[in-house]
Amino acid sequence: MKPTTSQVAGLVASARHREERGWEVLRDFAALLELPNVTGSTDDLRRNANELARRFEARGASMETVELPGASPVVIGELRTTTPTATLGVYVHYDGQPVDPANWASSPYSATLVSGPWHEGGVVLDFPGPGDEIDAEWRIYARSASDDKTPFAAMAAALDALKEAGIERSVDLVFLFEGEEESGSPNLGRYMKHLASRLTADSWLLCDGPVHQTGIPQVVFGVRGYCGFELTFYGPERELHSGHYGNWVPNPAMELASFIAGCKDESGMVTIDGFYDDTAPITAADRSAIDALPPVEDRLQAELGFGGPEVDGARYADRLMLPSFNVRGMSAAAVGQKARNVVPAEAHVSVDIRLAAGNAPDRMLDLVEARLVTAAYQVLDREPTSEERRSHRYLARLTRDPGYRAARVPMDSPLAETLLGACGVAGNEENEEVVALPTFGGSIPLYQFEEILDAPVAILPIANHDNNQHAPDENLRVANLWYGIDLWATLLTTDFTAVARPAAGGSG
Amino acid sequence: MKPTTSQVAGLVASARHREERGWEVLRDFAALLELPNVTGSTDDLRRNANELARRFEARGASMETVELPGASPVVIGELRTTTPTATLGVYVHYDGQPVDPANWASSPYSATLVSGPWHEGGVVLDFPGPGDEIDAEWRIYARSASDDKTPFAAMAAALDALKEAGIERSVDLVFLFEGEEESGSPNLGRYMKHLASRLTADSWLLCDGPVHQTGIPQVVFGVRGYCGFELTFYGPERELHSGHYGNWVPNPAMELASFIAGCKDESGMVTIDGFYDDTAPITAADRSAIDALPPVEDRLQAELGFGGPEVDGARYADRLMLPSFNVRGMSAAAVGQKARNVVPAEAHVSVDIRLAAGNAPDRMLDLVEARLVTAAYQVLDREPTSEERRSHRYLARLTRDPGYRAARVPMDSPLAETLLGACGVAGNEENEEVVALPTFGGSIPLYQFEEILDAPVAILPIANHDNNQHAPDENLRVANLWYGIDLWATLLTTDFTAVARPAAGGSG
Repeated sequence: MKPTTSQVAGLVASARHREERGWEVLRDFAALLELPNVTGSTDDLRRNANELARRFEARGASMETVELPGASPVVIGELRTTTPTATLGVYVHYDGQPVDPANWASSPYSATLVSGPWHEGGVVLDFPGPGDEIDAEWRIYARSASDDKTPFAAMAAALDALKEAGIERSVDLVFLFEGEEESGSPNLGRYMKHLASRLTADSWLLCDGPVHQTGIPQVVFGVRGYCGFELTFYGPERELHSGHYGNWVPNPAMELASFIAGCKDESGMVTIDGFYDDTAPITAADRSAIDALPPVEDRLQAELGFGGPEVDGARYADRLMLPSFNVRGMSAAAVGQKARNVVPAEAHVSVDIRLAAGNAPDRMLDLVEARLVTAAYQVLDREPTSEERRSHRYLARLTRDPGYRAARVPMDSPLAETLLGACGVAGNEENEEVVALPTFGGSIPLYQFEEILDAPVAILPIANHDNNQHAPDENLRVANLWYGIDLWATLLTTDFTAVARPAAGGSG
Repeated sequence: MKPTTSQVAGLVASARHREERGWEVLRDFAALLELPNVTGSTDDLRRNANELARRFEARGASMETVELPGASPVVIGELRTTTPTATLGVYVHYDGQPVDPANWASSPYSATLVSGPWHEGGVVLDFPGPGDEIDAEWRIYARSASDDKTPFAAMAAALDALKEAGIERSVDLVFLFEGEEESGSPNLGRYMKHLASRLTADSWLLCDGPVHQTGIPQVVFGVRGYCGFELTFYGPERELHSGHYGNWVPNPAMELASFIAGCKDESGMVTIDGFYDDTAPITAADRSAIDALPPVEDRLQAELGFGGPEVDGARYADRLMLPSFNVRGMSAAAVGQKARNVVPAEAHVSVDIRLAAGNAPDRMLDLVEARLVTAAYQVLDREPTSEERRSHRYLARLTRDPGYRAARVPMDSPLAETLLGACGVAGNEENEEVVALPTFGGSIPLYQFEEILDAPVAILPIANHDNNQHAPDENLRVANLWYGIDLWATLLTTDFTAVARPAAGGSG
């Protein structure tokens, strides 16, 4: 994609800023990383929130820390410009996963600059000063270096770069920085509802996650939703001697196997009546985006260690467009050294269903229940009584995990086209294609942006793929931070007019 | 069955002995129960062995304690008579299950006489003396009171009764008293081989287990054999995020469910090719024995707490005549509160197969393996390498539990007819039918009597059904001990000529 004059000016400013003040960007980032931020530790999180408010306030934004009772604070704010083409909401989270320092090569809260990955012989370096050369392959090791403090550093540096170059921003920004993402965002919807009038934007950007497995920049236009269930099948009230009673008394493990096996066919499709009925059709734009994806199948198979996909020839990205049915756990009596010669009293199976666009979580669980009823099961939502165990030959307990629906931005929407354009310009330095991923396979409750804030949401990852997210030795590759600054310098000089919606944006 | 004159004499002698010296029988029994006998505790077991040798030596038998290195001792012996009609081998075990005294109402090694079951308000009684009345509903609480010291007391008392009455025994007896049954009889075959020439009998009686659930005396003419296997199915090398990879990467729990569900059909029959092919046909004598069994289905269903048999209308005893296929355990990742949103890396299932007469354990496991191969699985007998996990889409580990075959006495054999006759006479006092059970559902390696000692073996239980075998508060109902004395007085006066085999018995 050919950059616009404004975008070129932004990129030039970004490059110059990196060249001249890259050392300062790294040191500022290191200082942010040195604030412990374990999710749930409210005092530490308040320090992070206040520091973020201070940093963006210093760059001209109007910031505020808001704390609802029983929740860690969010930081919200806005940064307006003279003639905005649209308003972009920016979501980043500042809390991090817990750490076990014993498993880290360096202290998780003292940012460590290393010449490369530890496992490739990286050695510790002093942080550079003015005029020192910076190798883009260096890594910064610290908790949240990639997940998810990177966007703060990238945005702040991009704002500085444009300011130094005297470039006016093309968009208004509205910020929402969350402190509970690693705890499952239990209060995000509550904060959104509470602050909805101040979180008005034409669209939201969720700045999190890594770039594509190939290392190529990517924009992700959706996440799957989620629901799940646990099923318990019942045999005799206590475990029975399998010699005396096996194959006369019903075996709940066998019933579990029959029921679950019957839920999918040989082509990997779920056979539960109606399972795919409300799935959004795959559009021509989806199709061409999927077809353009770099092939990852062979690489993943080798990396993850299995002998071929569930269904011969299945393409990875195709599967993500459908709701899944995944057995995440099974249990009955004991196996291995602890196996006993018994008819188990109960058998348990836990299933998660990833929802594609269009799927309603309640309805999916209703379909599972209907399938049980069709198979003659008496379905309970609690433990059966002794009397119920004696009076129903087919008895199952269904525990619903209600979940939430998927979120998607259409691949042929102005937002998708504009973001892919900007991302392509920013990533262009190394002549990379941009990966346009219709959806992540995983689930994030992004539907809340759609439902509560009434705006589409896309995901703009910056971090390297091998960042050890959630694990010890989390790290950010400096080249990815540089990409992040370029990306934000580009976004802030991109014409988002096509994205602006008369009713929604602060700019409309 | 009408008793013979000899049998009547035996029963009269037994009744008189119980009447006059029942108090002594109880006290002698109590003294035997006060010898701790936890399986594996060799010193204690030697004391039991020596006491048993002493007791039967005192009754005219020639006894010997034999101890092989690394094994608890066996006690062997013989008690000949003037004109034996046959030689009966008598197997009893003298070791007991471990105890946790904290869970017992009385000390497990100080025999406690109680007016009835504890849970029905039984109160502790002094042991009776000469002339005291003895209530047959009294219970003696102690470890091994029922499993399996009862036969020692019953046989000794019967021998005393006949001696006092001047009645000559009709059979030669050969004794084999084992001290490792509760440890799984790891050395029984070794002892049998070592002592085979001194363990020659026309048939063996295994004196263990309880009478029928209805309380009616029973003779059991077989046990099922046993084999088992554990299967591991493989997914990705480590657990993967189910959102990112579910339904593209193979799910081993799903494969397990499919394979196992496919092993049985809706009529409860195993669909593995050849599974029933070598099962001994059910004879007319089997059929009529089964048809004559007291119905237990409703009673078991209520007692064991389930809503109906695996297959609608299936009769309990019919199922025992077939090999079974029982899932005794299943495991993949985690369920319930510990469930994680993953594609499991492995799934495990453990199955036990109870073998009917005719089934060869090796062959049954071969059939399971053949079924896996037919389903395209690469079958290993060890953990796969990383390379194997990557190169085989269908990969399973099969761990064989080799087991042993069933043992059966034909229901129309002279042994079956003679034993049922004697048992019917002994149990006749309360006008009871005798239950002729073609086979137990459970497995005991009785095939060793057939293979090593070249003799059929039948099971003659004495203890009450509610004896708390293996559990705290094990007990024997006095009426069942009285039945045991009557039974042995009858057996020792029964004409076993039809059972004698020219080549086998010491009497032949």
